[in-house]
Amino acid sequence: MSKHSEPIGDFGLIGLAVMGQNLILNVNDHGFVAVAYNRTVSKVDHFLQNEAKGTNIIGARSIEDFVHKLKCPRKIMLLVKAGSAVDDFIEQLIPYLNKDDIIIDGGNSHFPDSIRRCKYLEEKGFRFIGCGVSGGESGARYGPSLMPGGTPSAWEHVRPIFQAIAAKADNEPCCDWVGETGAGHYVKMVHNGIEYGDMQLICEAYHIMREGLGLSHDEIGDVFELWNKGELDSYLIEITQNIVRYKDTDGVPLVEKVRDTAGQKGTGKWTAISALDLGMPVTLIGEAVFSRTLSALKDERTRASKLLRGPNNPKFNGDKQIFIRQLGQALYASKLISYAQGFMLLREAAKDNNWNLNYAGIALMWRGGCIIRSAFLGDIKNAYVNNPNLENLLFDSFFKKAIEDAQESWRHVISQAILLGIPIPAFSTALAFYDGYRHEKLPANLLQSQRDYFGAHTFRYLDEFIDAQHPSGDVHVNWTGEGGNVSASTYQA
Amino acid sequence: MSKHSEPIGDFGLIGLAVMGQNLILNVNDHGFVAVAYNRTVSKVDHFLQNEAKGTNIIGARSIEDFVHKLKCPRKIMLLVKAGSAVDDFIEQLIPYLNKDDIIIDGGNSHFPDSIRRCKYLEEKGFRFIGCGVSGGESGARYGPSLMPGGTPSAWEHVRPIFQAIAAKADNEPCCDWVGETGAGHYVKMVHNGIEYGDMQLICEAYHIMREGLGLSHDEIGDVFELWNKGELDSYLIEITQNIVRYKDTDGVPLVEKVRDTAGQKGTGKWTAISALDLGMPVTLIGEAVFSRTLSALKDERTRASKLLRGPNNPKFNGDKQIFIRQLGQALYASKLISYAQGFMLLREAAKDNNWNLNYAGIALMWRGGCIIRSAFLGDIKNAYVNNPNLENLLFDSFFKKAIEDAQESWRHVISQAILLGIPIPAFSTALAFYDGYRHEKLPANLLQSQRDYFGAHTFRYLDEFIDAQHPSGDVHVNWTGEGGNVSASTYQA
Repeated sequence: MSKHSEPIGDFGLIGLAVMGQNLILNVNDHGFVAVAYNRTVSKVDHFLQNEAKGTNIIGARSIEDFVHKLKCPRKIMLLVKAGSAVDDFIEQLIPYLNKDDIIIDGGNSHFPDSIRRCKYLEEKGFRFIGCGVSGGESGARYGPSLMPGGTPSAWEHVRPIFQAIAAKADNEPCCDWVGETGAGHYVKMVHNGIEYGDMQLICEAYHIMREGLGLSHDEIGDVFELWNKGELDSYLIEITQNIVRYKDTDGVPLVEKVRDTAGQKGTGKWTAISALDLGMPVTLIGEAVFSRTLSALKDERTRASKLLRGPNNPKFNGDKQIFIRQLGQALYASKLISYAQGFMLLREAAKDNNWNLNYAGIALMWRGGCIIRSAFLGDIKNAYVNNPNLENLLFDSFFKKAIEDAQESWRHVISQAILLGIPIPAFSTALAFYDGYRHEKLPANLLQSQRDYFGAHTFRYLDEFIDAQHPSGDVHVNWTGEGGNVSASTYQA
Repeated sequence: MSKHSEPIGDFGLIGLAVMGQNLILNVNDHGFVAVAYNRTVSKVDHFLQNEAKGTNIIGARSIEDFVHKLKCPRKIMLLVKAGSAVDDFIEQLIPYLNKDDIIIDGGNSHFPDSIRRCKYLEEKGFRFIGCGVSGGESGARYGPSLMPGGTPSAWEHVRPIFQAIAAKADNEPCCDWVGETGAGHYVKMVHNGIEYGDMQLICEAYHIMREGLGLSHDEIGDVFELWNKGELDSYLIEITQNIVRYKDTDGVPLVEKVRDTAGQKGTGKWTAISALDLGMPVTLIGEAVFSRTLSALKDERTRASKLLRGPNNPKFNGDKQIFIRQLGQALYASKLISYAQGFMLLREAAKDNNWNLNYAGIALMWRGGCIIRSAFLGDIKNAYVNNPNLENLLFDSFFKKAIEDAQESWRHVISQAILLGIPIPAFSTALAFYDGYRHEKLPANLLQSQRDYFGAHTFRYLDEFIDAQHPSGDVHVNWTGEGGNVSASTYQA
């Protein structure tokens, strides 16, 4: 230790790809002394001589050098590729760390990995934060949304830096403590899933305007511009307006030349799988992920398009301006369902993992800085501030009224798109969820009867029918008069 | 060995729950000498003195005794609870087995476990079959659908017994070799996923008739009876007809008293997760699983039903008889989409696992004996017999015409249900898939532009626009004029 000078670093960052470079410049801007390290050390030199020139950022030429330049408890953030690289750096760091030092993983790690790493580091006497970072390159540089979770005692040390560099919305930083172990990465994952949903909904609205109403891209740009001034005000609507107006050198909207195949192997898929595992009906994100997979089957779709007919004479005959207003309402209502589902998933994950999640805080973190930032998230924040124990977003009076106001337009738009032959899986599933959710009785009574009929899987009676002849608990009925009365409690075929 | 008498057993079975008892009685009926064993040995005695009295079934009182009563190569089937019990019995059996003996797992094992067990046993010189068994108790007794996959050389030894005891459809056994390693359990899993979808579609049709048309349960029974005589002819339609007509002692249809909450933690969920993992848009099974999870939120739905309004004045004003015909068409078209998706998933899983799947054989295995058995599966078998390389069921001329004939009714029924406020997630997603699948161009061009705009994730140009200015391969455009031209190839936030 003696050969090292007194440490002056407030914050260390490993990984100088675009995100890492921008985040460390952001930290520097806010008066903290940041120390940079990268596996390929020449990248450190290059960064200091170029992007970081004239800043207070310090470079390190080895892991040991890097650690010893940081004040204790050290705050070391990894912005490297999710997966084994994170574990590798953790192992490289451990020999040089002091008790209570904090390792922050800011990559797109899968939450079970963060749960594992948090326990591992805590057992060794260190502290861990798994932090969701959203906002892309420019967010990292000028104000990302940060979603930190992990060892609770780490928060007070990291908070001044994180809340300084985070985006601000309504004068509040878009960064607050999320919860224990992997909660930060879980919330980031759900954020990304919701992002999948928002993008899919916008694409469906765009498809309806293009094919159903026959609008030009400039006209569509006008619609998004208008929507961006109202309740749909959001980053994704704003950039969509810019995209559809962006012209190639020949004057043709560039978007017309972009290949319609989307990738999907990421956090959207994880969100859908987590929803299935936890038994929560997060249908809109599920459809958004599946829509990307369908888009990827481009060659097969091209062959299908030659063979499979759509509706006869699909023509829109209504008033386009009225329909566009209705479409905005349908988009808003569908989006509300997606967020309601997302928060249902968070609630269930919190129960499953013993996390204490701060729902208003989560809405605030998403309110600015990140891809799904919107005025709407301010309303969600308000709903949870008004009632921290709100069972469902749809029960909040503001949103309840919003759905009521939108409902007629929503149904009209979907039924029109169906008759016009335009695929709207996300719009449709949102409404199906709403109609299912508001039904005290769903047809699962028939489903349970079927399962008992063919597999003796048993069912229960509705509370109002329970009496001496209709016991509470699992019952099996011999529906056919044949076979036995043995129920299949363990073996299910 | 000398203390044992000469082995005479053709087939051994471990696990005397209802399924095991029925299956071994079925084996005995077909002239094979079966040996029975159960962990709790008293159950063997009880079975021999009761259900198996007067048969040729032999009991065993230990694993060693059991194995030594079987002729080589031994064919030993486990019908025990999926999970560690299967591994436990495999370990107990191994010390007594000879090279080339065959262990058959007939439980509802998850396919990755079967892949693992197959490799494990083959490395030790044994053979493994993971066999899907469907048809419930009565199928096991009188003819199940059997879906065996694993060590190919095991098939010739097992085939005479399996094809004898399996259900028959059109005079052919509903059992054929599926493919390598875990293919048998994979196909069974997809079968169960499709079963989820079929049941959900029937429930939605039932819901429309109950709430939308206001039919009585007896009238609904008449509709299912009619449908069962046409192209919807299937076991699930048949039992639904019986269920809705089944009266409680007070004359009320029993189904009205059944609690509308369905379980879902099983093979349907696995199918949806596998679809997400493989990137295949198996949306109908996904919605069916999510519908079960929504049904399970009974208390929350009850509260929601008091707060959330449906459409104003939802009343059906058309001709009910015409609408019921259209509903049957909509059900048929939606079901066809579900099966098309299921076979797309099988195709992708085969590619991913290097399985050689016999699609006509799979349709035949599902044609009889199992829960989803139907006349329809005969048509699917024919489609694959006519063209073993059929890319998609929807490309087969019979099904292409079926969809064309149904299309107008299908759209009408869905738009009506949407206006009436009846949740139809499975019907809706089926149509959304059809409309998406037959579109050469989907709005994913906008989605890819968004991803490139906010995250520099790159996109590709459509083939027809590729030239000197529009290169093939991944490109990034600076949509705003701000920021850099660096693409985010590895780090994605």
